[in-house]
Amino acid sequence: MPGTGHCRACSWRGMAAVGAAAKGPYKVQSAINPDIASERTAPGFPLEKLVNLLDGGAERTRIRRAVEHVVNGDTVFSRENEYFLTPTEQYELAVKRAVHLWQKMKELGWMDDGPELQFAYRIMGGNLAFGVHNGVFIPTITELGTDAQIAKWVPLAKDYQIIGTYAQTELGHGTYLRGLETTASFDPSNQDFILNTPKPSSIKWWPGDLGRSANHAVVLAQLYTQEKCHGMHAFIVQIRSLLDHSALPGVKIGDIGPKMAFEHVDNGYLILQNVRIPKENMLNRHSEVTSDGRYIKKSFDKINYIAMVLTRVKVIASEMVIPLSKACVIALRYSVVRRQSELKPGEMEAKILDYQTQQQKLLPQLATTFAFHFMSSSLETFCNQVKVQIKSKGDASSLPELHALSAGLKALISDACSAGVEVCRRACGGHGYSKLSGLPSLYTWVVASCTYEGENTVLQLQTARFLIKCLNKIDCGEPLPQSVSYLYEPVTSHCSAKEKSDFLKPFIYIESYKHRAHRLIKDAGIKLQSLLQSGVEQHVAWNSTSVQLARAAVAHCHYIVVKNFVETLEKLKFEPEIQQVVKMLCDLYALTGILDTTGDFLYDGYLTGKQLDLMTTSQQRLLSLVRKKAISIADALDYPDKQLNSAIGNYDGYVYQRLFEWVQKAPTNAKVNPAYEKYLKPRFRLAQSKL
Amino acid sequence: MPGTGHCRACSWRGMAAVGAAAKGPYKVQSAINPDIASERTAPGFPLEKLVNLLDGGAERTRIRRAVEHVVNGDTVFSRENEYFLTPTEQYELAVKRAVHLWQKMKELGWMDDGPELQFAYRIMGGNLAFGVHNGVFIPTITELGTDAQIAKWVPLAKDYQIIGTYAQTELGHGTYLRGLETTASFDPSNQDFILNTPKPSSIKWWPGDLGRSANHAVVLAQLYTQEKCHGMHAFIVQIRSLLDHSALPGVKIGDIGPKMAFEHVDNGYLILQNVRIPKENMLNRHSEVTSDGRYIKKSFDKINYIAMVLTRVKVIASEMVIPLSKACVIALRYSVVRRQSELKPGEMEAKILDYQTQQQKLLPQLATTFAFHFMSSSLETFCNQVKVQIKSKGDASSLPELHALSAGLKALISDACSAGVEVCRRACGGHGYSKLSGLPSLYTWVVASCTYEGENTVLQLQTARFLIKCLNKIDCGEPLPQSVSYLYEPVTSHCSAKEKSDFLKPFIYIESYKHRAHRLIKDAGIKLQSLLQSGVEQHVAWNSTSVQLARAAVAHCHYIVVKNFVETLEKLKFEPEIQQVVKMLCDLYALTGILDTTGDFLYDGYLTGKQLDLMTTSQQRLLSLVRKKAISIADALDYPDKQLNSAIGNYDGYVYQRLFEWVQKAPTNAKVNPAYEKYLKPRFRLAQSKL
Repeated sequence: MPGTGHCRACSWRGMAAVGAAAKGPYKVQSAINPDIASERTAPGFPLEKLVNLLDGGAERTRIRRAVEHVVNGDTVFSRENEYFLTPTEQYELAVKRAVHLWQKMKELGWMDDGPELQFAYRIMGGNLAFGVHNGVFIPTITELGTDAQIAKWVPLAKDYQIIGTYAQTELGHGTYLRGLETTASFDPSNQDFILNTPKPSSIKWWPGDLGRSANHAVVLAQLYTQEKCHGMHAFIVQIRSLLDHSALPGVKIGDIGPKMAFEHVDNGYLILQNVRIPKENMLNRHSEVTSDGRYIKKSFDKINYIAMVLTRVKVIASEMVIPLSKACVIALRYSVVRRQSELKPGEMEAKILDYQTQQQKLLPQLATTFAFHFMSSSLETFCNQVKVQIKSKGDASSLPELHALSAGLKALISDACSAGVEVCRRACGGHGYSKLSGLPSLYTWVVASCTYEGENTVLQLQTARFLIKCLNKIDCGEPLPQSVSYLYEPVTSHCSAKEKSDFLKPFIYIESYKHRAHRLIKDAGIKLQSLLQSGVEQHVAWNSTSVQLARAAVAHCHYIVVKNFVETLEKLKFEPEIQQVVKMLCDLYALTGILDTTGDFLYDGYLTGKQLDLMTTSQQRLLSLVRKKAISIADALDYPDKQLNSAIGNYDGYVYQRLFEWVQKAPTNAKVNPAYEKYLKPRFRLAQSKL
Repeated sequence: MPGTGHCRACSWRGMAAVGAAAKGPYKVQSAINPDIASERTAPGFPLEKLVNLLDGGAERTRIRRAVEHVVNGDTVFSRENEYFLTPTEQYELAVKRAVHLWQKMKELGWMDDGPELQFAYRIMGGNLAFGVHNGVFIPTITELGTDAQIAKWVPLAKDYQIIGTYAQTELGHGTYLRGLETTASFDPSNQDFILNTPKPSSIKWWPGDLGRSANHAVVLAQLYTQEKCHGMHAFIVQIRSLLDHSALPGVKIGDIGPKMAFEHVDNGYLILQNVRIPKENMLNRHSEVTSDGRYIKKSFDKINYIAMVLTRVKVIASEMVIPLSKACVIALRYSVVRRQSELKPGEMEAKILDYQTQQQKLLPQLATTFAFHFMSSSLETFCNQVKVQIKSKGDASSLPELHALSAGLKALISDACSAGVEVCRRACGGHGYSKLSGLPSLYTWVVASCTYEGENTVLQLQTARFLIKCLNKIDCGEPLPQSVSYLYEPVTSHCSAKEKSDFLKPFIYIESYKHRAHRLIKDAGIKLQSLLQSGVEQHVAWNSTSVQLARAAVAHCHYIVVKNFVETLEKLKFEPEIQQVVKMLCDLYALTGILDTTGDFLYDGYLTGKQLDLMTTSQQRLLSLVRKKAISIADALDYPDKQLNSAIGNYDGYVYQRLFEWVQKAPTNAKVNPAYEKYLKPRFRLAQSKL
């Protein structure tokens, strides 16, 4: 937005230009709203060190700011007026930006897998085209294709000479992959595959970059050869002409229309009617069809499987934690410049962040941001370790644990981030309902993550299935993977906390979470077992226990997140000032989580009502401590104004002036709506003589 | 939408025309999808009687269907392609519809306050202009104006010769009315008022119908005369020319830009700079300024206050319960035609409503719809009783109770309806993210109600303040209003339920809710008292207790809703078949509410873990019972397809065909996006020689 040129890339405490705000009808008195300036006078911790911790080191902070400087200085990447664009304009801009970014990358030597791109994405909020092309189409060919296939397709794709989509989901099937219905039948007489969409439910639906951009697709289809189905395989299919972009014969293709968000992405549909593709377009690394039609399985594609898990894990950071952290920054800054009602009668109206109810809404979200930031880092590390194990030693024994963890954490984190963004949005009252606050689009963006990459309930039940298998292993005396080894450990039946300060001891709350997870998993296992023993069929028993199983999976993942937060904390022992801040957030996250679900802890008497009262006192004390540092902690998330793109979340705290200024540019103010001439003028004319 | 001409207004089991669906690439086999037809074969209760119950009698059902027949048969009211409109087009259509509806009303003799308009609004989902003009501007003049003022302004307004807005909220102040800053200063030399917007935070912001339509406004401003402020008063201000619609001198005016929804409403801003209005434009029924500038208070405007409460109460039905009920119908119908994954290995894929997790998501929402439908009816009755008491006997003694009830219930119901719509939306997976499902716009519509007409947390604290006052009355031995009289009653300390069937006895769960409310209110009171006794200042004590106070208010309202549901049930004793269905929903609502917040009931040992296990068994059994009747119950909500406007929620259950068909009309499919020529074509050309 104009005039907010607060260049963080160059100067941490740069001048917040308020020139633009001053152009409004009322002059701004100082560069920073005194109500927010006063929040920054004594953060009590070295802010820059916290920035570095979040970035993963000072060097990465440097790189990030350099990237932000490039992005902020480039008009193509400007997000100014973005909230006024139509869906068609948003798509056009996203393509423009994607092509421009690709040119910039070549110019500046940024690598595909380097930190620069990740940082660029972080601040641009993903408003770029070709996410599926770059993030799924190319990696799928790389993982599932032979060297020859990679050599043929990947360079063209990386050079944007072709744009590809990944056509998996169909109208009738999403997360349940085995149910997909598109067919690819081998025809030995022609040495080609014939692809078909047999019925309405098999129309490919949702693939990104498909509706308007892609000329190629990796199509997932049931492979038929010698009259037998061999399950899902991937085929490269050209879908549009390279000459004029028209759909090729037998191909019907289009956009799937308006969505809750992601209007810049052309999610599309695809119908294939007897479309023939050459035999070599089946991605062949792990299986192939011989020229006489025999199907040969060459290897199990564990690496591809890891790639899928890694995608899911990366999405946690980029599509869930980032929106939540941006929402926190906006809502917290707004809450120290918004004054409403008298806290003390006769005094100045209070900052809304000084109300306990507002603290209870926002500060746990800030703590959650940190919890999930650390969790997603650890999960990515684990994922890479497993990848190395498989690649170097062929050891895939950690895959089930990794799958269960990533599935359950994806569900937990997407649910919590969506809820958290919405809490932040509503905490900003009416202004949080204006798109100009930036908050509505953060919600409609983040909440999609509850559905894609595996629907959350389905994922929770996958995690639960793993946990139940672990229970069975215990019965057989088999060893358990590290993240579930606690199921072997003895459980304490009562929390040992005696006074409120005890609840600030991490081992106390870790033990509580562990106890809950332990109990819920075992209880679900017992229910399942007793149903089976009473003669209920396996699938009925599973279904009848599924609500409890899903809850058990959530409790397991919640425990993992808290434990990981504490482990991160322990690594900070040489940075006591930072450790102290992070400790407060860790305590707040852990205690709020218990207080939100007290029933789970009271159920078997692990915690007593009296202990909960002590914990409530501790948590409320934490709220008042975190409140004092809240703006500095939010500042340490270090989002440049231009990319936060919120009229109420700027660093300088001038909310009302900026809202007024931005509104002036709304297209609805550009000209008189035709409704006036058509419907209103004839009626208003009648009143002229009467008033 | 085309071809869905299932005219409920004429025939309850009319032909669902699937002609349009059949025009797609795949023919439909029968008029109703067998997967949904099979759900309707044996509802086990007289469906039409349930319809009548919800409508408030068979005669009202007849009127409603007649209204729906008019609306469905009128192209101006058609919602076809609504999801494809730009904000500008939405506004234009909303004005067109409002003017058309006004003509229809005159034509058909519908009254302003008759049931027809309410029913028309119910199915049109409020996509009409002039909501504030009709719903607030005119009533405010009627309540606050003298007879002469009413005679002058109201006929013009009712005839749409003028359009007015109600300009109260400012950039800097919403729910806290005393903080509003706009001023109206009396100038005795000119016998007029001078209106001013002193600073950016005082710009009027949000009023509906202001941005583009209104030429008049009721402006709420601090009245100054004889150098003294007399608080908020209402003034009629002309803001735009009747001749050419331009802003009058001293007036700056415009639209506040894009919002999360309500794009058809022109919420606006208004700046007044030394705008003079004649003395007689102050609304004078309850106070006036004499020609020499003396301020005279004539009466307290209790009737106006009641009008405000009545507005809030009406909003509960129209803006909260209706969106939730529509979302339930859509999600439930989708869930019996969507088949996903094998429940029993080797068998046909299961309807997703047969999964316990899906039942746990959707069926409590259906029960909630009924709970709130009955609650809002009772509240409206109470509100009208109080109005009569005041008008006929001047007895305003029930006002505080009514205020507390309406505030707390508005907060409870808007929160729960928003959460419920979102549960329904997410339960439809990817298709629930498509605007064509109708669900995203139901969410963005309903969630606004958490913020307008009083921000929910502020309202909860107002209810809490009333409850604490009631506690103090108990100490003084004073009588309590009826809805809080339970605070006087002795409380049982342990729930008496012994087996799972006990939890299907209403007195058991009512007592549980009562116990919780009782305890939370008293605990909050005790904390407050002990802080005060320890020397903490009143305002600090209140703030430090506010999280608990808000929770106590929620618990009180939750108890009221459950109690009211059971009372409604008792009135159905002469309709046993209907009573049985409603009883299941009542039980489900009550038990789910306890199971969602078990900590509140376990805290002091009122319920034990073992009792909760029994309750869980009862609740899960209820899920399976309600599941069998779910589609028939949803049908009884009786929304015509054309107005439900969901590609996945039609009566006939043809989801995939309709999604495909609707998508063909998306503007994004109408022509090639310019991005292709500008950015993609030059690159794709390079690949031509290589593939």
